[in-house]
Amino acid sequence: MTGTGTLFTNIGQLVTPAAGVQRGAAMRDLNVTRDAALLVQDGVIRWAGPRADAPASPDEHDLGGVAVVPGLVDPHTHAVWAGDRLADFEARIAGVPYEEILARGGGIRSSMRATGAASVDDLVTLARPRLQALRHSGATTVEVKSGYGMEFGAESRMLRAIRDLQAEFQLVPTLLIHVPPTEDRAEYVQAVCHDLIPSVAREGLAAAVDVFTEREAFTVNETRAILQAGKANGLHVKIHADQFHAIGGTELACELGALSVDHLEASGPAQIAALAASSTVATLLPGVSLHLGLPAAPGRALIDAGAAVAVGTDLNPGSSPLYSAQMALALAVRLCGLTPAEALCAATVNAAAALGLADRGALVPGQRADFLALHSADWRDLPYTLGASSVRSVFVGGTAL
Amino acid sequence: MTGTGTLFTNIGQLVTPAAGVQRGAAMRDLNVTRDAALLVQDGVIRWAGPRADAPASPDEHDLGGVAVVPGLVDPHTHAVWAGDRLADFEARIAGVPYEEILARGGGIRSSMRATGAASVDDLVTLARPRLQALRHSGATTVEVKSGYGMEFGAESRMLRAIRDLQAEFQLVPTLLIHVPPTEDRAEYVQAVCHDLIPSVAREGLAAAVDVFTEREAFTVNETRAILQAGKANGLHVKIHADQFHAIGGTELACELGALSVDHLEASGPAQIAALAASSTVATLLPGVSLHLGLPAAPGRALIDAGAAVAVGTDLNPGSSPLYSAQMALALAVRLCGLTPAEALCAATVNAAAALGLADRGALVPGQRADFLALHSADWRDLPYTLGASSVRSVFVGGTAL
Ligand SMILES: [Zn+2]
Ligand SMILES: [Zn+2]
Repeated sequence: MTGTGTLFTNIGQLVTPAAGVQRGAAMRDLNVTRDAALLVQDGVIRWAGPRADAPASPDEHDLGGVAVVPGLVDPHTHAVWAGDRLADFEARIAGVPYEEILARGGGIRSSMRATGAASVDDLVTLARPRLQALRHSGATTVEVKSGYGMEFGAESRMLRAIRDLQAEFQLVPTLLIHVPPTEDRAEYVQAVCHDLIPSVAREGLAAAVDVFTEREAFTVNETRAILQAGKANGLHVKIHADQFHAIGGTELACELGALSVDHLEASGPAQIAALAASSTVATLLPGVSLHLGLPAAPGRALIDAGAAVAVGTDLNPGSSPLYSAQMALALAVRLCGLTPAEALCAATVNAAAALGLADRGALVPGQRADFLALHSADWRDLPYTLGASSVRSVFVGGTAL
Repeated sequence: MTGTGTLFTNIGQLVTPAAGVQRGAAMRDLNVTRDAALLVQDGVIRWAGPRADAPASPDEHDLGGVAVVPGLVDPHTHAVWAGDRLADFEARIAGVPYEEILARGGGIRSSMRATGAASVDDLVTLARPRLQALRHSGATTVEVKSGYGMEFGAESRMLRAIRDLQAEFQLVPTLLIHVPPTEDRAEYVQAVCHDLIPSVAREGLAAAVDVFTEREAFTVNETRAILQAGKANGLHVKIHADQFHAIGGTELACELGALSVDHLEASGPAQIAALAASSTVATLLPGVSLHLGLPAAPGRALIDAGAAVAVGTDLNPGSSPLYSAQMALALAVRLCGLTPAEALCAATVNAAAALGLADRGALVPGQRADFLALHSADWRDLPYTLGASSVRSVFVGGTAL
């Protein structure tokens, strides 16, 4: 990766969106170059185009004629947790109401108890195979949230686990304010704003602050206070909004210039219009729709209105045990009405934009050399294939993993 | 696998339905033995139970405390085909009607053209990685259908490809009468009954005859003639029925004592009652529902009525590019309302029964030693996990693959 760099040749199809966030119909504008080559130096793409026009390089790497696409970006996971939710899963399928699952000691509070009791090393050990599964599925950059902590020490341990895992994976850490306390809410929000966020920002433990804005979680006013504290401390902001009820989280996110608003299953015309008029990315999480049997977010309507749409796994034990960025992309096609090209854009440059990253997601000069060599010579196998990986090999910064 | 056999020990959970087909509520009666062992000799289970009670064996194999479940049986695939349907996929998602896709030269007739033009060796080479993916997902026995041939020579080549692949995989071949000719239907059905079926039976190329019974395919009367010829030639019979319209295929299957009736998305109370009163297995194919965005079969209602339900991938390029028996099982939970335990039963003993096999699918003495060691110590990870394989290793006849 020094000198003149490595020339990857014999790429059957080099497939990429344009660099940077893509909105509306532009999400369908993939560039497909047949019999292509890619020059990588110091982890960055220096040249991409038809092999016949490629610069000479003493270091050539033949990719065997397969399709190459950008490494996927998973912009929304809760990949750090302890305990499991298998009993909850079985009970819910058998028809037990969520209230009763909670009363039995299950639900999200069981994940919070187990995660709160775990050490940083425990959390690292538990999260590693999940992140390996995501990478195997083609994710070269993964966002990971805190949020099972409640108690600030536990939140901090989750963020330290993410930091430790950054030695092995390209991760973007997010501080998630997830579950309100059962009492002293105002005091809790104050402490989040004046203690937790400043200390997380000071230590560089998170790139963004996220809030779960929902009837049963935080109000729009609480969210506003928390995200303003995030911005005041130099952090990006984002919101879990409109998962069950459109109570104003999406509108607030657009007003505050949030990087993204995620979920959107309950978004209607007003929320779609707000997103289309804003720079905020709309992130779809179709694994939740499949796992819980709930309606999917209006991906088709968002793109048709001109919004920038991304897709993520939402990997978490309660509502989306989805360990594949490829499958998230494939589900966005089946459940949210995206075309294959739109879904690839949603899972690459737009997912990167949802994390504030403009340096990855496209295979053009100047971008990071994170890319996937597929088993197939046709990139459409990636959104098409269900239940198996279409990814033959994963390259990060031009190096095969 | 000789002498006293191999004792598999340190099985965290040994999980199995009872041997043989299970109907209605009995589908939920899994036997779970903690800290178990399994004695295998000559490919067959000789003993299963708590490790403390296990017979001594000089040949012990420690499974590391994980959960062990029966090898999955995929009772419905079209894993042999040539060509691809990626352009169809893209067009359909973009809203192009199926009639126009057909007019463009796509649709099932494109698979028939490509498959008809392929040699037996081509078909073997194309099908092998698909069967490897299914095995990787936990399928130790897989049914594979002909049906893209139309022309009898092509049907025969498909069945020969399946026969050749039996050297590598445990496969059950089915002769599928899939697409009626555009003219001379009566003559075609006559030739199927008097030439194709007898010759396939004589050569031992299929265990069963299957017909696609649907408004746009074969009528109930045509189906009856074909299946009666199948029975007269000593073959099992089964039907693709009620996929789009309940035109009587299910009732005919029950009347004829078919092994299974598959699809059932359009089945109503009459068809559910017929299946509950019969020995015919009801096979769900939820990959089709996910891929095409169509309603799922009434799995919950079928079990509640007392039917025996199985689940399969329906792996095929047009309507179910689903390469995972685990994911078929997981989708039966999400889309058809099966509990995790019912889904495991549907994917093991009941799927075996749908193929006329009573010797596999349960981990009890006398059954084939086809089993899966999971990554997890909790078997429920198998139906729970989406987008990654829960299967650490696959054993066929007691031998790790
Ligand atoms: Zn989330
Ligand atoms: Zn079929």
